[in-house]
Order: sequence, then C-alpha cells, then structure tokens
Amino acid sequence: MDSLLPCAAGARLVDHHCHGVLAADLDRAGFEERLTEAAEVGPLGTTLFDSSIGLAVLRWCAPVLDLPPHCAPDEYVRRRRSLGAAEVNRAFLVASGIDDFLVDAGIWPDGFADPASWTGRSFDVVRLEALAEDVVVAGARGFPDRVRAALAARDAVAAKSIAAYRVGLDLDPARPSDGEVEAAARRWLGSGSSRCADEVLSRFLVWEAVDRGLPVQFHVGYGDSDVDLHRCDPLLLTPLLRATRSRGVPILLLHNYPFHRHAGYLAQVFPHVFADLGLATHAVGHQASRVLAEALEVVPFGKFLFSTDAFALAELYYLGALLFRRALSDFLVDGLRRGAFTESDAERVCHLVGGGNARRAYRLD
Amino acid sequence: MDSLLPCAAGARLVDHHCHGVLAADLDRAGFEERLTEAAEVGPLGTTLFDSSIGLAVLRWCAPVLDLPPHCAPDEYVRRRRSLGAAEVNRAFLVASGIDDFLVDAGIWPDGFADPASWTGRSFDVVRLEALAEDVVVAGARGFPDRVRAALAARDAVAAKSIAAYRVGLDLDPARPSDGEVEAAARRWLGSGSSRCADEVLSRFLVWEAVDRGLPVQFHVGYGDSDVDLHRCDPLLLTPLLRATRSRGVPILLLHNYPFHRHAGYLAQVFPHVFADLGLATHAVGHQASRVLAEALEVVPFGKFLFSTDAFALAELYYLGALLFRRALSDFLVDGLRRGAFTESDAERVCHLVGGGNARRAYRLD
Amino acid sequence: MDSLLPCAAGARLVDHHCHGVLAADLDRAGFEERLTEAAEVGPLGTTLFDSSIGLAVLRWCAPVLDLPPHCAPDEYVRRRRSLGAAEVNRAFLVASGIDDFLVDAGIWPDGFADPASWTGRSFDVVRLEALAEDVVVAGARGFPDRVRAALAARDAVAAKSIAAYRVGLDLDPARPSDGEVEAAARRWLGSGSSRCADEVLSRFLVWEAVDRGLPVQFHVGYGDSDVDLHRCDPLLLTPLLRATRSRGVPILLLHNYPFHRHAGYLAQVFPHVFADLGLATHAVGHQASRVLAEALEVVPFGKFLFSTDAFALAELYYLGALLFRRALSDFLVDGLRRGAFTESDAERVCHLVGGGNARRAYRLD
Repeated sequence: MDSLLPCAAGARLVDHHCHGVLAADLDRAGFEERLTEAAEVGPLGTTLFDSSIGLAVLRWCAPVLDLPPHCAPDEYVRRRRSLGAAEVNRAFLVASGIDDFLVDAGIWPDGFADPASWTGRSFDVVRLEALAEDVVVAGARGFPDRVRAALAARDAVAAKSIAAYRVGLDLDPARPSDGEVEAAARRWLGSGSSRCADEVLSRFLVWEAVDRGLPVQFHVGYGDSDVDLHRCDPLLLTPLLRATRSRGVPILLLHNYPFHRHAGYLAQVFPHVFADLGLATHAVGHQASRVLAEALEVVPFGKFLFSTDAFALAELYYLGALLFRRALSDFLVDGLRRGAFTESDAERVCHLVGGGNARRAYRLD
Repeated sequence: MDSLLPCAAGARLVDHHCHGVLAADLDRAGFEERLTEAAEVGPLGTTLFDSSIGLAVLRWCAPVLDLPPHCAPDEYVRRRRSLGAAEVNRAFLVASGIDDFLVDAGIWPDGFADPASWTGRSFDVVRLEALAEDVVVAGARGFPDRVRAALAARDAVAAKSIAAYRVGLDLDPARPSDGEVEAAARRWLGSGSSRCADEVLSRFLVWEAVDRGLPVQFHVGYGDSDVDLHRCDPLLLTPLLRATRSRGVPILLLHNYPFHRHAGYLAQVFPHVFADLGLATHAVGHQASRVLAEALEVVPFGKFLFSTDAFALAELYYLGALLFRRALSDFLVDGLRRGAFTESDAERVCHLVGGGNARRAYRLD
Repeated sequence: MDSLLPCAAGARLVDHHCHGVLAADLDRAGFEERLTEAAEVGPLGTTLFDSSIGLAVLRWCAPVLDLPPHCAPDEYVRRRRSLGAAEVNRAFLVASGIDDFLVDAGIWPDGFADPASWTGRSFDVVRLEALAEDVVVAGARGFPDRVRAALAARDAVAAKSIAAYRVGLDLDPARPSDGEVEAAARRWLGSGSSRCADEVLSRFLVWEAVDRGLPVQFHVGYGDSDVDLHRCDPLLLTPLLRATRSRGVPILLLHNYPFHRHAGYLAQVFPHVFADLGLATHAVGHQASRVLAEALEVVPFGKFLFSTDAFALAELYYLGALLFRRALSDFLVDGLRRGAFTESDAERVCHLVGGGNARRAYRLD
C-alpha cells in the first residue's frame, strides 16, 4: 500500500451499501459460487479463480490470512477453513478500515452476521420489496397503510428498491393512489407468487420512502443472471428523478456498471441524485482504476459515494475497500501529476467520496 | 503547455458549434450555475467547484486572469468581477486560439455577445426549432412554405436540430408531406405551447435543411436535465442517416458523450456523418484524454471535428480549446510512442480534426 | 515485438471466427473499401488510410511486404499488386501465427480462398440464414425437416446466426413449432425476398443448432451500415440465453464493440456464454489495448476467445492477431506491474484466451 496517497490509504470509510457476512465455513465450490455474480462454476468455463476478482483474492486476501500472495486456490480455501469463518470474517472486516456500514438485510440466510459485528457501526437499510412481501400476507385491503406503518416502525436510515430485478427501472413517475395499490396487491396475491414484482407496487414503495424523507437506494446495472441488464440503465429512471426532484430526498444509484457514466450524468444534473461503483469495484480487480476514473468524469465530487455491496464473503468488504482506495489514489495521483488540482484538493475529494458525502446524505451524525 | 505536441498547441481551431457569451458580471452562484449542466447548486451536494470542470477553472483559467493556479473559488469570482465581463471575455477568447466560430444563436438572452466579437470570424448556424417557433405564429396554413422562405432568407452555414430535447432521436426517416406538416402545426398551435416538440416537425425541418444543402448538426447525448438521455443515443438516428445518405449533405453529431463510440461508428459507416466531443471535452476536465481517445477509436480522422459547445462563460471556450489540445496531443503522443504513425501523420490528423474537416464539411473557405 | 510478453508474442492462436480471403489483386479504391466497415470512400471524408486501421496497415503490414514502416498508401497498394494476391495472402497468413481457423463461409464471392490454404487447419462454421436461404427454395412445406437434414449433412463445428443483421437480437426465447416455422417460410416466399429476415426463423435456426449440440455464434454489435446497431446490444439476448442455459451448448458472442462490457457480463453470469472482441481489435489499431482491457473486466478468463473476423484482406488476419497479442500483452504486463498476478498466471490466461477456450468450447481436439 506504500504507493497509495496517504489520504486514500488511511481514509476511514462509510460503506453506504452492503449485506450480511456468512458465518459458516465453505468448501472450494461454495467459495467460488459466492465470488462472482455467476450462480455456479460451469463445466464449459474453468475455475472462477481465473478471473480478475479470483486473482485479486489470491493476491491481496491471502496475506491477511498469513498466506503468501498468489497462493494456490486450494491452499487459500484450506487455510480459510482451518482458521474458521469467525476468525476469517474478523480479520477481513477489521482490515477493511470501514467505520460505518449501511446494511441491506433484505436477504439474510441462516448463519449471516452483521459486518459491524467486528468493527464499526451498523445502520439499517430497509429493502422495500421484502417489507411489502412481509406485509401483503395480511391481505390486499389496507395494504398501503400497513406498508406505511411497517416503514414507520423500522428505524432505518435508508430504503432500498430492487425494482431493477423485479420490473426494470422504466418506472412511471406518477404516485399511484391507494386504490391502485390495493388492486395491484390483489393481483399479486391472486398470482400465487411470493415475490413483489409489480410496477405499481415498486413505485408506490419508492414514493412512500420519499414521503418519509428516507433516502432511496436503487439497485442499478450489474447483478446476477436474474436481472435483465438492458432494463437497468439508470437513464430509465429519468422521469421518476424529475418527479421527485423537488422533494429534496436523496436518491442513490448503486453499482451502475456498465452504465456508470450514465449515473454520473444523472448525479450532476439532478440535485438529489448520488452514485457509486459498488460491486464493480471489486469485481474488476486490478482494473478498478480505469472504471472508477470513468465514473468520476462528470459527477460532482460531492455526489459520489463508496460502497462494497459485499455479500456473504468477508473478503469482498476487504477487497472492495482496498481496490477503492487504490483506484481513488490512482485517480488523484493522475490529477496531481497533470497539475489539475492540489494535494489539499485531493484530500478533500478523498474525504467527501470516502465518507463525507454519505454522512451528509444519510444524516449519519 | 510545453509538453504538448507543437501541432496541437499551436493549431488555429475552428469551433464548429458554440453559443453566445454572457456580457454581464456574475456572482459566485451565477458562475456555478453556468459551470455544469446542473441548473443550480443543490444543498445536498457541495460547491460545483468540487468537480472536474470546477477544478479545471481554478487551475487553468485563473492564470489568464493573472491569478495563481489553484486559487480559491471566491478569489476567482472576485477577480472576475473586478476585471469586468468585457475584459474577462476578451482575455479568454483571445487565449483560446480559435479562428472561426459557428454560432448557434437559438438561445440568446439579453446581454449575450458573439464570441467572434474579440477574435476570429463568425458563421451563422440556424436553430431549426427556433425558426419554426418564429414562423408558426402566422398560422398553420402555409407553414411549410414560410419555413422554406425563412431558411432561404437566412445566410447560415448550417442548421441545428434539437430534436433530442424535444422528441428524442428516434425519428421516422420518411419525409413528411406538406399536408402532414400543416396538420402538425395545427396541433401545436392548438396545444397552447410555444415549444416546437413534434416528431413530424422535427424531421420536416431536418429534411428542409438537407434539401437546401445545409449541413445539419444534431444535439446528441449529454445535456441538462431537460433531456431524456436514453432517447438521445445517436444510434437511434440510423434510419434517418440511411435515408439521407444519398444526398451528400453532412450530418454532424454534436457532444455524443457518453455515446461517443456510437457516434464514431456512425461516422465510419455513413459517408456523410461527422462527430465531435464538444461540451464533454471541458466537462470532464483533466480526464479529457481518455474520453477523446475513445471517441477516436473507429472514426476516420477525416470525420471528427473540434467544438466547445461553450455557452455564456468565456472560460468554456478557453477550456474547451485547451483541454482539446491536451487530449489530442496525448492521443498523438501515445501513438508516436507505440510507433503507430509518424510525426507527419500526427500533424495531418491534428490539422484535419482541428479545423480542416470543418472547413471542408461547411465549405467555409 | 520485443516488448511483448513471450507468451503473447509466441502463442499459437485459434481464430474462432473468420471469413474467406480474396485471391484477386486490388487497386487503391478496392483496398480502401475493404479496410473498414464503410462501403466506400466518400467525398466528404478523406482517404480511409487516415484512420487507426489505415495507419496500422502502413505501420505493421508494410514490413511483411518488405516495405519500410509508414510507407505511403500508394506505395503500399503498388507493392501489394506487384507481389500478387497469392504471395501477399501467403505472407500475412503465415506471419499471423494462427493454427486453426473456424471459417464462416456464408458470404463467399468468386475468388475467395480458405485462410487455411496457406497454414493451419480449417473448420466449418455454418451460417444459419444462408442455409435457410438455400433450403427454402424447395417450398415452405417440410421446410423445418429440410433445415434439419441440411444441418445434419454439414460437417460443421459451429453455427453462426446473423439475426443481428436481419431482425435484431431481441429474440423471443420460445422455440417455435414446425407449424409456425412453415407459416413464416410461406410469408417469406410470398414476399419475393431472397433474404431470411424473420424473427421466427432466426430463433428456429438457433434452436435447431442447439438441439444438435452445435455451438452457436452470434454476430453482436459492430458491423457495416446494414446493421441497426441499437438492436444489436447483446443484452437483448438475455431471455434466449436464459432459455438455452440448461442445454449446456456454448453460445459465443462475436465482436461486441461497443457493447463489449455487456458481453463480458453475460459471459460471467451464464455458464454457457463466451465472448470475443473480433473485428474491433484491428479496427481500433494501436488503441486495442484499452478496448481489450475493458472487455476483460468481468469476463472469467475461461470464457473469452480470440478471433479476427477478417474478411477478404489477408492483412486483417495478420493485424487482428498482432494487435491482439500486443493488447493482451499490455493487459498482462499492467497486471504484473501492479502485482495482481504472477507470470505463471499470465501464461495461463494467455493460453486460455489465445486458443484453449476455443478448443474446449468447440471440442476441436
């Protein structure tokens, strides 16, 4: 880390979007399955260690477990098991240098732990579709008010929409009436599905969060094969962003890859929009510098955030933070080399992006 | 500038698309509002000086006003006011090294001045929708012929379409009949809106320009929050480009970010299509080199143009030119370093892109 | 080549998608017309030698013909003619270092030759639409079974779909019934067109190939002006990829530029999907390194392939291979410089991408 700018190397980070940590031990297949957005290792490919993220684990995570860098995949998985999940998780979370975690607990399998169990503070992010799925079982009549009550009862700092996964981001900007919402809930209950996958409900949930002044995070772009990525371009949110602009409630575009330039544009032209590069930052491994630089082209530095989007593997918190530090340092060093700004500018940008913007947007302090 | 290739540093430029210069003094809020495509500084963000373009102003514009590079924003705005808009505008326009300005006067608030007031020649670009808005007030009957007469009466070197802002770029390629155009004008007048925002009229206007042999500029991509960016991908113009191909009249795709690779592709496969990177070149500040290199991947060097798309702030002409010179120099130096072409090739590419292509496409000489 | 990593410089390549070589001599216009995806040199542009690919020919191909690098275009074309097409073709194909060619013979003008005529092995790729065009002349009744018989009679290692050119990639994932296919064939015959351009038929052909276990190549992205590029984003294939996933038959996304990041994503999340950067690798000339690096961001290294997509000009095999070697070397050297992986990792990635993945996906050995 000695070639990193000190402000990037030492920044205490706010991870404004992440998930739980798996507290169970994993064999090699189980580890590989959680390493990328692929559901499993396929016989047509080779090991998923043959990928940017896989090589990054062997290079940068191995030393945290007292292995030499670039160890063999089997050696890595064996060491991980011998240390045990508790020790592995502690080591990576402490090494990540993250102070605050905003945790989306929408998917929380048995054996998941809060990343703040080992270090830092935890803040609750309520996944809107999961809340609706809990609430709808009591019936369609009164569903809107029960959603409101459930939101009010939850001490969350933000809401999270997975409309991208369920209906795409081409949401009608109009706030639906309670009658329309009840009708949608009735259709849903009649469908027999437990999944909230209705455009009326997705935007109802977003509007309810906005009404409560809850910052709304949107899954955008990169995800697993359940997503229709061409329906997840953040530009599709433009009408809704226009409609919510006057409310002054932050809308936060998550991940965004490969549409990160689109997200940067939206964060520039809409005063309430923010963007990040979570998930992609660790997924692209040692190539994070170019991708982050693209993401930072037109976004004002007061509108960009750090996140890991880490799920299950503690390595992903560590790598998400490490590769973000390196990429941000590379971006700043390049600007300094070109004389584009001063060291004090670089430190301010680092402070904003690493945590200041998140603290302001979510009013964490 | 001493690390720039001499051919890039010294090129006399043709700015083939720009706007007027504000002749009034500005306070800090007024300056920031005109710095990016954001309409205003929002309370959720920080100052817009915390952006690539903001830091570029402090770094490269300050010395033109006899301030040290990297001065404080307040100091910059104060100095600007104390010098007065007339002196500030003269200083930046002269320093830009631009010889010819093709000026879109479609938006021309009180107190706007022609950038060629201080240096160089000015050429008129007629904004088609503005012309239609002037003409339609006399009624729908005869509207097509009155548009023709108005176009004929204007001594313009090019037409400009803002279909992107009004109806998107997914234009039907068919030339509408005068009857269809009159019907559309009638609908427009009945709507009570003064804005020309009808797909039939947008393509009618384009076809009229093409009929007169007037090169047609299209706003593409990056703009303010009025634009639906996902409807502004230049690829949506493909059917119209096919339909106009045999006419041999240049079609010029402006800005294009973040779809600049798409524009380069169109400029390669359609003999009458040209592309630029205006607006984005200064918006991305010190990162212009990578973005310009992407824009130059597949576009033939005889089909790419320089422009600033500067509006209101004289700084944007200067930065647009300076950052273009630096980015073009970086592109050429990288090619020379790789042995991909010779210095004489680099000089020829610089000459074409800096002005030769514009002179040929618009028959300026 | 001395700055290339030895593993990249010396790799014996499998070109998993290419076309025939023109065995006739060319004048300058004929050469330029085949150099890019432009159909001809237009009077509004300059020579197509003023492009990344044009300068690459003068730089890297000239020495293969015993000319100095950076010779003049006319000198290059004259030398080419004086040597004769047979000698020129032999020189470039041998110098390419390609061992195996998967040849799409769907367009095969008089005077075309198999690239393996001079070196290496040739494998047949059946172009599905061309096969359908041959078969349909016998009538709509029985068309599905005649397609099956024609596919069975062909000793091909893969099928190729040009749905992108004919109907776009937004294919319905449902396998059509024989009745639907016969109805579509009837409509086609009634239309008087000889071109297979029907969405039902495009997906029928793909499903037939999948049923036979034939890997299916899709034209994606970059092509000539016949293509509607906005209908060729590989993400549009998502529903069909989901529907074919359980079959375990490779789907290979060709070219992909400027959607190469989208293709990499699909190759990560679908176990049967592969991607390449053919055509674009030589089209962008000395800039291939950045584009290839982007293509390799999230794709597992077991899922990316080399191809040239070379058509007509033997130079394109040579440049496709040379620029691929340089770009892959730059990618690997950058990773080594950052300490992201070891030399043995670099060698393994080179081996997979250069040929190992193709040998496994097509079962070539």
